[in-house]
Amino acid sequence: MTLNTIKDLFIEELRDTYSSETQTAANLEKMIQAATSLQLKQLLKTHQKESRQHLERLKEGFKMLGSSPEGNFCEATQGLVKEAQEVMGEEMPGELLDVALVMAAQKVEHYEIASYGSLHAIALSCGLNDVAKLLEQTLGEEKAADGNLTQIAEAEINKTAASKAKAA
Amino acid sequence: MTLNTIKDLFIEELRDTYSSETQTAANLEKMIQAATSLQLKQLLKTHQKESRQHLERLKEGFKMLGSSPEGNFCEATQGLVKEAQEVMGEEMPGELLDVALVMAAQKVEHYEIASYGSLHAIALSCGLNDVAKLLEQTLGEEKAADGNLTQIAEAEINKTAASKAKAA
Repeated sequence: MTLNTIKDLFIEELRDTYSSETQTAANLEKMIQAATSLQLKQLLKTHQKESRQHLERLKEGFKMLGSSPEGNFCEATQGLVKEAQEVMGEEMPGELLDVALVMAAQKVEHYEIASYGSLHAIALSCGLNDVAKLLEQTLGEEKAADGNLTQIAEAEINKTAASKAKAA
Repeated sequence: MTLNTIKDLFIEELRDTYSSETQTAANLEKMIQAATSLQLKQLLKTHQKESRQHLERLKEGFKMLGSSPEGNFCEATQGLVKEAQEVMGEEMPGELLDVALVMAAQKVEHYEIASYGSLHAIALSCGLNDVAKLLEQTLGEEKAADGNLTQIAEAEINKTAASKAKAA
């Protein structure tokens, strides 16, 4: 593929992010089913709803750009999803699986924080202010979701798993 | 594999991070060669030196835990590296390649921020304070490297690529 301008690159990277959101949406349902902590289940469900919005915002962005979302499969997300699926396939107690699920979810969040952060900066540098606004909204939600996962890990999930290990 | 305690999971995830650092170190050299902006080249070189330290700290951590770093290949990083290599294989002007390289580098940084962040929290919850200190030091450097990349993107790289597109 030949990319000539920063807008060409922007659209390619937007497609990568669309592919990332699509792949993680399918995987998130499996993570919700696998989680044993009710609080974690709830947090992931809330993020699932937000992720549907993120896909809609991306579609809106493509419309604004007169472009289409398909055509760039995100291999990094494929790796992240594989990792999460491997974790769900390993034999471990439920409280330990929750720790592993939080880690897997935060890795995905950070992939998306990096993607939306870069896309937002590029959109601004190209004067694509309306698209930038959409990306900024999603970026804020990804950061908040990551913060919520850190909070639940430190306040509940890690402590529960560590105390069970001590009691064993 | 059967994981019984949070310490088992911690060691598995520490091995994933060791694999991630090893894979990205090999790729970073290619990114330094490919970058056209001298400032970006310099930033990546500085991070290359830091990354060597990160690997040494991980080895130190494994020693403290009486464990070994090998045995968990990181598939997510493989995907991230593939993405970076695809970018370097695409036809585009140098100033555009720099934008793409910054994005690829920040995605790797964020993978490592998520990994070290979770590992640090887990180490603290298990009372592994000495290992936690090592992880915290690296986490700080990964966050700083990500911040430096954001700064160079916004101040120089994206602007240069956007102005060339306008002039064309």
